[in-house]
Amino acid sequence: MNNVTITIDAMGGDYGVAVTVPAALSILKKYANVRLVLVGDEKQIKSQLGFLRRNNKRLSIHHASQQVTMDELPSKALRTKKDSSMRVAIDLVKSGEAQACVSAGNTGALMVISRFVLRTLSGVDRPAIVTIFPTVNSSKDVRMLDLGANINSCADHLYQFAVMGSVLTSALDDIETPKVGLLNIGEEEIKGNDLVKHAAQLLSESKHINYIGYVEGDDVFKGIADVVVCDGFVGNVALKVIEGTMQLIAFYIKQGFKKNWYSRIAAITAYPVLNDLKKKLDPGRYNGASLLGLQGIVIKSHGGANTPSFANAIKEAILEVEKNVPQRIGEQVGIMLEEAEF
Amino acid sequence: MNNVTITIDAMGGDYGVAVTVPAALSILKKYANVRLVLVGDEKQIKSQLGFLRRNNKRLSIHHASQQVTMDELPSKALRTKKDSSMRVAIDLVKSGEAQACVSAGNTGALMVISRFVLRTLSGVDRPAIVTIFPTVNSSKDVRMLDLGANINSCADHLYQFAVMGSVLTSALDDIETPKVGLLNIGEEEIKGNDLVKHAAQLLSESKHINYIGYVEGDDVFKGIADVVVCDGFVGNVALKVIEGTMQLIAFYIKQGFKKNWYSRIAAITAYPVLNDLKKKLDPGRYNGASLLGLQGIVIKSHGGANTPSFANAIKEAILEVEKNVPQRIGEQVGIMLEEAEF
Repeated sequence: MNNVTITIDAMGGDYGVAVTVPAALSILKKYANVRLVLVGDEKQIKSQLGFLRRNNKRLSIHHASQQVTMDELPSKALRTKKDSSMRVAIDLVKSGEAQACVSAGNTGALMVISRFVLRTLSGVDRPAIVTIFPTVNSSKDVRMLDLGANINSCADHLYQFAVMGSVLTSALDDIETPKVGLLNIGEEEIKGNDLVKHAAQLLSESKHINYIGYVEGDDVFKGIADVVVCDGFVGNVALKVIEGTMQLIAFYIKQGFKKNWYSRIAAITAYPVLNDLKKKLDPGRYNGASLLGLQGIVIKSHGGANTPSFANAIKEAILEVEKNVPQRIGEQVGIMLEEAEF
Repeated sequence: MNNVTITIDAMGGDYGVAVTVPAALSILKKYANVRLVLVGDEKQIKSQLGFLRRNNKRLSIHHASQQVTMDELPSKALRTKKDSSMRVAIDLVKSGEAQACVSAGNTGALMVISRFVLRTLSGVDRPAIVTIFPTVNSSKDVRMLDLGANINSCADHLYQFAVMGSVLTSALDDIETPKVGLLNIGEEEIKGNDLVKHAAQLLSESKHINYIGYVEGDDVFKGIADVVVCDGFVGNVALKVIEGTMQLIAFYIKQGFKKNWYSRIAAITAYPVLNDLKKKLDPGRYNGASLLGLQGIVIKSHGGANTPSFANAIKEAILEVEKNVPQRIGEQVGIMLEEAEF
């Protein structure tokens, strides 16, 4: 395997260096071909490394004096935070010193800065956020996009999301022609708003997309589609509602097993199963959303990610570097969009 | 308690009379003040009653020769199905022979026909679909609207949904000033699309709405808001995604407990807890969405509802009749909208 260098926005997320530094160390232990650059306040990073009493030759520190806060206006972050850990981590991808960047920081700022610094691939109007979900078909996952990068998409954008999602799935999962579904509120032709109706037309006319038609919210997890496409507002609501539902059910399970002495004993017996379930319901297991459509790899981790979960986001970055995702998307988007006469 | 008469679209839903007839009988057994009118094919209804070998004096049959199919175009159903079980069931509410109607049929058709026959309350532009969800605060539920009646809402509509949702919650749950949240993709003022930003302005200026600001998808189940307001496209996706996530987790639980001999034994020990959980995750427990804003009560049951679940939808109708919901909404909407200078 070739050497892979990835920059880490060490200050991003709810826990900053307390999570990003140990996650980086754990990755270096597992991947001998990976180099990581921790970007952020040198003092804080060094102090965290000292606290952990660990270090690694393939780990370097790149000092950045500023930090993008979680509630900062993205345009303001772009204008005023030119030496922020997030910005510098992306700059290093642009300059070729690294092949990917991972951040758990402010999603809007990450999107705006990435787009400004790295630019979109030729033929891509807007980048999209994509992540993977499990399905009831254990051998099959589903990717959904856009999850919040674009809040007023037009049909052409949804078409581009379909192209990018297909190429990503094809590259990472070795599926030749991934099945693409369009998120709608009904399976029948008669339902849906103008946006999805128009996008459905574009997708069904395309020779390059294996378009399977509309899918509803509850179809996402059925494994009938490999890629589900939607506007970013709808996708982000769906993403958060999935998290909320999982938290609600986890609460029910806990409450149920704590109810009385009998259920407490049952909980002990059922511990291995419950522990397995807990792992499956952990959103961190699937942590690491890609900002797709850029001339470079940017992975967004959940802001509240813990160490193993942030490490998963770094793994996603390594995988996309090794599979050469942006180049493949660039080539395919070029071919598909050209033939679709855009 | 006063007498309550409710019409049942006996042919609606995936199972028609096989579910609607036994559900009606179970309700009559529990509610001595309720009369039910089964509307639909007399032969089929009688045959089902004969099959069950049961009847009830407070149960009557109103023959209707047509049926609205699940995939029928709503406008076509309105035009051509004037003697359908759905249409006649609503007509009987309009004529005053019944105070509410329950149907598990085609949602779009039910909405279009209800609106045409019953008309909206003065001050309400569009009816909305509302239902109730549990939260992690066991003493608190949350109502969410619109869940699919309107796919291109404007800010005024979202404001009206907030008013209607508040009044309904106030009437049914005795909460004086229900907390209203607006579904968005970020908690901060900087996020969201133009629709939610404009609606947020209207809501925060209102003296009559206890507006608590933006809520994200994962906040819905936290019990921080009593009412969550959104556009129908987004709301319907959220509703279906909740169902899909619950199905996925139910699948995981089953799979986990069937894995090996140990987990199978654990499943036996944990049976009471798992059974309780199964009941809690059953979407039928909360079956019965209201079509709010009409001059009459119309309750939509899930199309795939089983007998106890369809009975829950009838219970919701009874409750709304007893609490005089449409009149209360009409009064409050009138006052609030007038003072808001609409």
